[in-house]
Amino acid sequence: MPRLDESARGVYLITVTPFRDDGALDLESTDRLTDFYLDKGATGLTVLGVMGEAPKLTAGESEDYVKRVLARVGGKVPVVVGVSSPGFAAMGELARRVMDLGASGVMVGPGAAVRTDDQAVAYYEMAAATLGDIPFCVQDHPLAYAGVQLPVPVLTRIFKTIPTAVMLKHEDFPGPGLAKLSAMRAASDRGEIRRISILAGNGGGLFLPEELSRGADGAMTGFSYPEMMRDVVAAHAAGNVERAHDLFDAYLPLARYEQQSALGLAVRKYMLHKRGAIASAAIRKPGPKLSAADVADVDRLIARQDKRLKELG
Amino acid sequence: MPRLDESARGVYLITVTPFRDDGALDLESTDRLTDFYLDKGATGLTVLGVMGEAPKLTAGESEDYVKRVLARVGGKVPVVVGVSSPGFAAMGELARRVMDLGASGVMVGPGAAVRTDDQAVAYYEMAAATLGDIPFCVQDHPLAYAGVQLPVPVLTRIFKTIPTAVMLKHEDFPGPGLAKLSAMRAASDRGEIRRISILAGNGGGLFLPEELSRGADGAMTGFSYPEMMRDVVAAHAAGNVERAHDLFDAYLPLARYEQQSALGLAVRKYMLHKRGAIASAAIRKPGPKLSAADVADVDRLIARQDKRLKELG
Amino acid sequence: MPRLDESARGVYLITVTPFRDDGALDLESTDRLTDFYLDKGATGLTVLGVMGEAPKLTAGESEDYVKRVLARVGGKVPVVVGVSSPGFAAMGELARRVMDLGASGVMVGPGAAVRTDDQAVAYYEMAAATLGDIPFCVQDHPLAYAGVQLPVPVLTRIFKTIPTAVMLKHEDFPGPGLAKLSAMRAASDRGEIRRISILAGNGGGLFLPEELSRGADGAMTGFSYPEMMRDVVAAHAAGNVERAHDLFDAYLPLARYEQQSALGLAVRKYMLHKRGAIASAAIRKPGPKLSAADVADVDRLIARQDKRLKELG
Amino acid sequence: MPRLDESARGVYLITVTPFRDDGALDLESTDRLTDFYLDKGATGLTVLGVMGEAPKLTAGESEDYVKRVLARVGGKVPVVVGVSSPGFAAMGELARRVMDLGASGVMVGPGAAVRTDDQAVAYYEMAAATLGDIPFCVQDHPLAYAGVQLPVPVLTRIFKTIPTAVMLKHEDFPGPGLAKLSAMRAASDRGEIRRISILAGNGGGLFLPEELSRGADGAMTGFSYPEMMRDVVAAHAAGNVERAHDLFDAYLPLARYEQQSALGLAVRKYMLHKRGAIASAAIRKPGPKLSAADVADVDRLIARQDKRLKELG
Repeated sequence: MPRLDESARGVYLITVTPFRDDGALDLESTDRLTDFYLDKGATGLTVLGVMGEAPKLTAGESEDYVKRVLARVGGKVPVVVGVSSPGFAAMGELARRVMDLGASGVMVGPGAAVRTDDQAVAYYEMAAATLGDIPFCVQDHPLAYAGVQLPVPVLTRIFKTIPTAVMLKHEDFPGPGLAKLSAMRAASDRGEIRRISILAGNGGGLFLPEELSRGADGAMTGFSYPEMMRDVVAAHAAGNVERAHDLFDAYLPLARYEQQSALGLAVRKYMLHKRGAIASAAIRKPGPKLSAADVADVDRLIARQDKRLKELG
Repeated sequence: MPRLDESARGVYLITVTPFRDDGALDLESTDRLTDFYLDKGATGLTVLGVMGEAPKLTAGESEDYVKRVLARVGGKVPVVVGVSSPGFAAMGELARRVMDLGASGVMVGPGAAVRTDDQAVAYYEMAAATLGDIPFCVQDHPLAYAGVQLPVPVLTRIFKTIPTAVMLKHEDFPGPGLAKLSAMRAASDRGEIRRISILAGNGGGLFLPEELSRGADGAMTGFSYPEMMRDVVAAHAAGNVERAHDLFDAYLPLARYEQQSALGLAVRKYMLHKRGAIASAAIRKPGPKLSAADVADVDRLIARQDKRLKELG
Repeated sequence: MPRLDESARGVYLITVTPFRDDGALDLESTDRLTDFYLDKGATGLTVLGVMGEAPKLTAGESEDYVKRVLARVGGKVPVVVGVSSPGFAAMGELARRVMDLGASGVMVGPGAAVRTDDQAVAYYEMAAATLGDIPFCVQDHPLAYAGVQLPVPVLTRIFKTIPTAVMLKHEDFPGPGLAKLSAMRAASDRGEIRRISILAGNGGGLFLPEELSRGADGAMTGFSYPEMMRDVVAAHAAGNVERAHDLFDAYLPLARYEQQSALGLAVRKYMLHKRGAIASAAIRKPGPKLSAADVADVDRLIARQDKRLKELG
Repeated sequence: MPRLDESARGVYLITVTPFRDDGALDLESTDRLTDFYLDKGATGLTVLGVMGEAPKLTAGESEDYVKRVLARVGGKVPVVVGVSSPGFAAMGELARRVMDLGASGVMVGPGAAVRTDDQAVAYYEMAAATLGDIPFCVQDHPLAYAGVQLPVPVLTRIFKTIPTAVMLKHEDFPGPGLAKLSAMRAASDRGEIRRISILAGNGGGLFLPEELSRGADGAMTGFSYPEMMRDVVAAHAAGNVERAHDLFDAYLPLARYEQQSALGLAVRKYMLHKRGAIASAAIRKPGPKLSAADVADVDRLIARQDKRLKELG
């Protein structure tokens, strides 16, 4: 399995975890979903993330799920595993286990008690000491991590002093998203830090074309149409920025709908189910359920999206 | 001046407050901006709101600004004034002053210390007692009010027991936005509460077509193209839901960009300045500034929006 | 092992977890510490609590530690195990494991995402469904649980509908501590809920005499002098309230010092080490360290406490 | 009136604002209370603070109250006025008004939106620019200011670059209280910053003897027995540290009771009323009320305190 490093780029899909209608972990759908992601253009996978219902899994289930994904991926793309935990002991234990299973690296968000710059840096120094030589991605996502901010001075300190911190997952929205991206690129242009990999996902991908213009190496998000990220990234890389926007705009109405925090995961699983990637849209409790009105909204948006994409060719 | 009541509908524009480049309050632009809003379809105005830089005004400036807006509006549409304050004494004082000047009603967000359902209801009972017979709008906007939630059971208690609470400004995003809207309409359909006015602005208008489908009476938001809200509301009211979505989608890329919390107000003022509605895009400190990259982003989005609107006819 | 029920009373000690200087779990000290707590008057133990450094233990260490405590206690007093987890799956797994090992019940604080009354009740209903017939203690401790409040209407709903919720650990400080205690007792006096066990620990025991006067059945806290709680509870039960206060006041200066959130655990372990209950005062990282000035403070307070207790006889 | 500077020391009383039973501002009691504070040893007063119900006053009432206090003080001791506001315009306006009336300086807590070190420093730079040459006290009190932390690196940056920041009000509890105090003194000992005035009030005075040992210049808090602070500070200054602790310990049970956040102000006003300092214990809504059980608690604590002080001589 490739090891995560600063050269990572493209589209890292944040995977959902498939369950059966009765709530059991669905390993058959895990295979199908993994294939789906790879078919639709994923150049990497991120498992056990915020949208992967990781806290609802037992330790054994987490391991079964990661093992299955890794087996199916078969080393074709890197797999990053979310290991954020209330304590470093559990973080270290999970990280070592998944690396032994063949993961490429891990992802770590800041602890809920972090309040000041020094505390944030200390947290990541402690995480790095816990992880040893395991490469990791710094997850900057205040909405999912108790509002904890990782401002530019903190991030530059982290990437300056911790060689195993090789990637930034940038999802500081609503917040100083694009400006932070520009500032981090400027920091490596000035030689203040290494040029790290930055994968963006502000608002769950709602700013992808602009993020690419600011120097993001790609996207890390879980939108149910991975081909959006693949095609936008490709058009952008080919220098066709207007085309990148055209494609993005076609998916935007649905992508926006998938970003409702209370409901988003249910929308995402509904669409993945509809697209044949998973056998059931079930979410483990506690979790939202789509109402009939929600389903009507989504179905309308899908129909409109199909039509618009056809117009674009 | 019309008095705010449960029949309010249409598009209530959340106004910006214009400053000159030197930071002084710009009353000439206030006239021009008021005309702009009315020309573009506002059926009401909301002043001294979160995006109106109200806390940066002295008491005297607030009064001058409100007086000027009211004079220019001349009673043509209702004007709602944000009066949320750390204490009820200041809230009451400001509310009485603006009502004396001719405002139609006021808007009140929950206190920052509210944590439980009973505390939320008690806060609004206290506000209502403070405001006497002044009609008010309940502002449900956790992102702007210290994360304070106003769940459906709290809102129904408020609207059941407080006759001067006539309107809900619904902006619970990311959160249970659309479901809450449906639930509030169901509550009045069941006769549990009066049918109040609900103006929506989840994500700053990013869900307008869906909100209208759920029973919103219109929009209260400040997007720099009020014609978007006007035309979407009109198409929806005419039963042309697909047309409403077509129009909405054309504006969505720019509306989304205007929703970046750290930068949004600067984007909005930049566009209002570009459109000739205000003499300067200046924001009082502390406030964000657009970078050259931001301006390039916005200019591209405007050009694309113009093109798309032309295609739509 | 006795099963936790509504009749629990006395002094439940929140145990620390002993480590060696090199950071390894110290099972020999675990025996010694357990004996110390029982000798000093504990009528129950609470392990893997907030002050037990639970998140710093691996799953295997948690199990080893609980097993060792249970073996040493040998059924003499009930042992409650903290099982709060980011997800219900892990909570259920840990709870079943410790019950199999012989625990008497578990303790559950509210999830970090809880914001409204309904969400709080739903959280405990979900926890109860997860725990099956395992009796549990509701932990009301906003400072340790992301500021989540459990107001009286929420607690009465929980205790009314969930028969396995048998105890309230009351530590709502700084907050409506004593009033809440009175209200909960009034609720069972009125027959609105069963008479549950309430063990108090507001401010880590800083209100014990007043809590007993309001109807608490005892204390659940971890002050390094358990004899304080034992003797205050005994004097109070004997009707000698002034004597209860005299004793309490003698310990108060040190108890107060042990309540500094950043430093408290280090103070506690320093004293337990000094008293011979554990071999090392080591705290696992991340954790505070006592400075020379801190040690001087504590030593002075111990000397003064010894003197004052001697005066009291 | 003396101007606030780095030499401030002793006991700055945080005043309550007296109301009549009908809720009106009680200016006669304001005179009496001012005399009481000065008689009991205040070497300075802090008005319109967190415990002064400032947000419940109209602008006019604030001015009347400050004017009255200043007239009564007659320049005998410095008077600091709390001017924290949601916006800088209002802060500047209030500050200039009270300085014109004869205040010695103002006090400023951090804005609620501050999350990172740079934001905290920027906030105080903006405040300093707003205040011009008005000397001010930096209020470090996370519990009262939306949890905003001011860690040592932030404080040293503020005091290094802002000459009008002359005092630190230190009330970071529960938090790194005493260690921060030591660190700030070490910073000026090393010559990194000027030696500023530090007045402490961690936990509302619950750590006074230890704070003095760490180098605090005195106390800024509002405990209803100012003679506690006066006598502890005096004994400590005279080198009689054990005597300082003896006196402190005698008051500690009551001081602790006055620190219950929901109830503390009601306890404080009850005692000030009982001591003859104010005509009514009334608190403006929203505010707590003492129950009969609360009053019984307080009366018992007062009786015990009187007895203990007599024993001490």
